Amino acid sequence: MRILGIDPGLRITGYGVVDVVDGQQTYVASGVIRTDSDAPLADRLHTLFKGLSELAAMYKPQVAVVEIVFVNVNPQSTLLLGQARGAVLTALTHAGLSVMEYTALQIKQAIVGQGKANKEQVQEMVKRLLKLPAAPSADAADALAAALTHAQSSKMINAMGQASQLPAGALRTRTRKGRTSWR
Amino acid sequence: MRILGIDPGLRITGYGVVDVVDGQQTYVASGVIRTDSDAPLADRLHTLFKGLSELAAMYKPQVAVVEIVFVNVNPQSTLLLGQARGAVLTALTHAGLSVMEYTALQIKQAIVGQGKANKEQVQEMVKRLLKLPAAPSADAADALAAALTHAQSSKMINAMGQASQLPAGALRTRTRKGRTSWR
Repeated sequence: MRILGIDPGLRITGYGVVDVVDGQQTYVASGVIRTDSDAPLADRLHTLFKGLSELAAMYKPQVAVVEIVFVNVNPQSTLLLGQARGAVLTALTHAGLSVMEYTALQIKQAIVGQGKANKEQVQEMVKRLLKLPAAPSADAADALAAALTHAQSSKMINAMGQASQLPAGALRTRTRKGRTSWR
Repeated sequence: MRILGIDPGLRITGYGVVDVVDGQQTYVASGVIRTDSDAPLADRLHTLFKGLSELAAMYKPQVAVVEIVFVNVNPQSTLLLGQARGAVLTALTHAGLSVMEYTALQIKQAIVGQGKANKEQVQEMVKRLLKLPAAPSADAADALAAALTHAQSSKMINAMGQASQLPAGALRTRTRKGRTSWR
């Protein structure tokens, strides 16, 4: 399974691609898509859309994982972040990917082991889990962490399914709705 | 010139198509795109994206006009509306349309003559301006009103340009940035 993780943002959207083969996670790629803050909003959203469409075509992931963003103290920032996230989700579904969503809390708990982990801790754990020579940038690390969270969640679901012989349909429904059913 | 007006919303997005020939505005089409409130967010955004892509392909407008939404009292609603607007703007730019934005205040002032106009007044004026047999639904009327606002704005810009011999480039820059320069 190949997973594309996304940390959405209007100015910078981080991405990370991870392969999971026989329960082993391996790093494929990561980076950021930047938009020109002087460009009109519609053009910036289209930059995100095109960037993600290219990533989907290049790496051919089966599933995309997007961090669930929270409302900011500044309502105008919330609206801008919402629009960026809308462009990101649209690009992923348009590319035919199924989309999973996890909160930052769930991602930090899955990767670092505690929901209050800071950015440096996430970067360090992503580096260790993927055996990277150096820690990736914060935006790329968050995207890789999202992908790794889904990799762990999928392993749990598979293990649970094999242990208790849950009907496959029950798992599929949960997965399709983008819910995290592993905790 | 053919104008596609959009009133963006996650549950219901209104659209309206208006032709402007020799300063005369004529009705072409209007309606709404609905999304299934039980479906995952990514699927609902994709429904908006696909719907607008189809409208762009069917009616071939030169320009799209989208109402600027304001932050809601409920931050979660603001985030959802932002994501819907992100999907809408992405679909329009992806279809190659230039996108203009006007606030609800600007649209009401242009169509009804006062920024505090209610929904019924907008519906009634849209009906009169486009010589329709009956008032369109509120969502479709808002979208048609957005298109008509741009039609009036463009006439003003043209008139100003002819009167003062502004260089064409100056006007084009304004248009590209989606600014309203008529008031």
